[in-house]
Amino acid sequence: MMGWDIGGVNTKACRVPQTGEEDKATSLSKGFEIWRNPEKLPELLGEMARELGPVRAMAVTMTAELSDAFQTKSQGVGFILEALARAFGETEIWVLGTHGRFVELSKALLSPLDFAANNWVASCLYEAKKNPDCFVLDMGSTTTDIIPIRQGRLLNKGTDDTSRLAQGELVYTGALRSNPNTLVRQVPFDGRMVRVADELFCLMADVHLLAGKLEPEEYTCPTADGRGRSPEECHARLARLVCADRDIMSFDQALNLARYLYEKQLETISRAWHLVASRLKKPFDLPWCVAGQGSFVLRDLASRLEVPLATPLEQEVKALPARDVALLLAEAIKKEGLR
Amino acid sequence: MMGWDIGGVNTKACRVPQTGEEDKATSLSKGFEIWRNPEKLPELLGEMARELGPVRAMAVTMTAELSDAFQTKSQGVGFILEALARAFGETEIWVLGTHGRFVELSKALLSPLDFAANNWVASCLYEAKKNPDCFVLDMGSTTTDIIPIRQGRLLNKGTDDTSRLAQGELVYTGALRSNPNTLVRQVPFDGRMVRVADELFCLMADVHLLAGKLEPEEYTCPTADGRGRSPEECHARLARLVCADRDIMSFDQALNLARYLYEKQLETISRAWHLVASRLKKPFDLPWCVAGQGSFVLRDLASRLEVPLATPLEQEVKALPARDVALLLAEAIKKEGLR
Repeated sequence: MMGWDIGGVNTKACRVPQTGEEDKATSLSKGFEIWRNPEKLPELLGEMARELGPVRAMAVTMTAELSDAFQTKSQGVGFILEALARAFGETEIWVLGTHGRFVELSKALLSPLDFAANNWVASCLYEAKKNPDCFVLDMGSTTTDIIPIRQGRLLNKGTDDTSRLAQGELVYTGALRSNPNTLVRQVPFDGRMVRVADELFCLMADVHLLAGKLEPEEYTCPTADGRGRSPEECHARLARLVCADRDIMSFDQALNLARYLYEKQLETISRAWHLVASRLKKPFDLPWCVAGQGSFVLRDLASRLEVPLATPLEQEVKALPARDVALLLAEAIKKEGLR
Repeated sequence: MMGWDIGGVNTKACRVPQTGEEDKATSLSKGFEIWRNPEKLPELLGEMARELGPVRAMAVTMTAELSDAFQTKSQGVGFILEALARAFGETEIWVLGTHGRFVELSKALLSPLDFAANNWVASCLYEAKKNPDCFVLDMGSTTTDIIPIRQGRLLNKGTDDTSRLAQGELVYTGALRSNPNTLVRQVPFDGRMVRVADELFCLMADVHLLAGKLEPEEYTCPTADGRGRSPEECHARLARLVCADRDIMSFDQALNLARYLYEKQLETISRAWHLVASRLKKPFDLPWCVAGQGSFVLRDLASRLEVPLATPLEQEVKALPARDVALLLAEAIKKEGLR
């Protein structure tokens, strides 16, 4: 089996044996900015597949359809699926729907929106086999997913990004690239509440680094001003949030500001979780399975809300959705004999 | 020495020896709703003083001037000071100003606003002698005070209630009587955000009891509907916040709502503390001296913000401002030989 996770900036593939053994997975990730040379996608896919070796069937997840390369999500999903068909004409290809079922590539082309931004579904469905009752909270660089799982079933109400935002199941705030000015309209500075600038002057990575929550080597995204990642450079960027500089806002004041913004990010995620939780019975008893670069934020929130933690998703696996969708397909073929 | 704390509903007095020994203080509290029979105040004061025994001098704090009995605060302060003068014509009487200094009663009458709502000053000044570097956070039934103290000096910027609200030094939210509808415009219920009713259907005491933070015997204020204090009765009242009842909102759903509102109260106090803190150097190093019926909320917040706790104010002392103002006067006379 081979699983794919085709993103806007990186394309990931993972090969697993048909028997479904996790520890025999081999994976591969290639930088490929889809908006630069979209027509080269089939070629890239072919290369990656050759590198990993031949397989009986493939499973697909994606997020690249949201790229500016495409005018609509439907167009993006169609483009990606056609690139796969072109690259692997002879191979059986299954696409995971946000409804949680596998659909053949040719049929998926008939309702492309059911297959947009579906990579969280793979990880959650796979997690549901290990923790049949839990919340999956996955905080990446810019977004946070909140998915309740009961008796092995995903209880998400949203399926596409917009309905997931409406339900609180997708929160557009993350550990690194998010702009702090989306969390607050005003921040405390020198005894007053000051409105923030609507510019990309600084990132949550600056906040977390100054607040002592993130190590410099975990600051893996580009900085907002192209300068370095030292605390002093984070200080200078954060001062810009209220149109100040390091002469006007001292290092200590920037620390205070970072800790305020850290609180605001926790509050934002907390509010969304409470909204999802308000649909469920005894949500405070469901353990949280936390994942992603922002799992330190999620662990702090779990502790504050006094909810238990579940065994975390395997962080060390690269290309997790690619691996999980391949393992899910292996199992589905074994159990249900797809096709 | 005798100290007074004249509130709108209770009047407290405390007698301490001139030598200033805390453990020899004796105190007295009488229910007296000033708006019912304001003209009886001198009589009450005389009775209480006789019960405690003769003293050389008296020190005064108050909050009763905010009662609806008076049209302005000046009028209220004047009325209270004149009642004291009438009751104790021969006794030396000093009034503690919100600037932190004692002023003779006759002079205090010339600038009454300097003496309105001054009882927090007494406790903070006294606390500052024990913890010269700290934050005093005192959460009562309806309000929370946040006062930074450095090198034994109160660093409050506000003096009257309005300027203290503006500075974040006074937060109008408390442990018992506050209406949860002041903390939120909407609450999560059954997967949706629902606007709250602008009625006094429930209290923060209901929230804290359901959230497991308050024991039934600590629910010392009247309930909003005149019914009892059992978890089921709190549930019924809390359901009213979104115009529901116990049939529409289950007990478990009310628990979720209570825990959401608890978070919102912490966020409200946290925001005010950050505002006060933003004026100070290294505010996260200043220990919190927490006091009042809501000290459980404040301890939780301190832990979340990772700030240390100082030795708490003595909770078991009834009439704390009355005692503290008397001890402060004893010391001021000893040191500065007032008059």
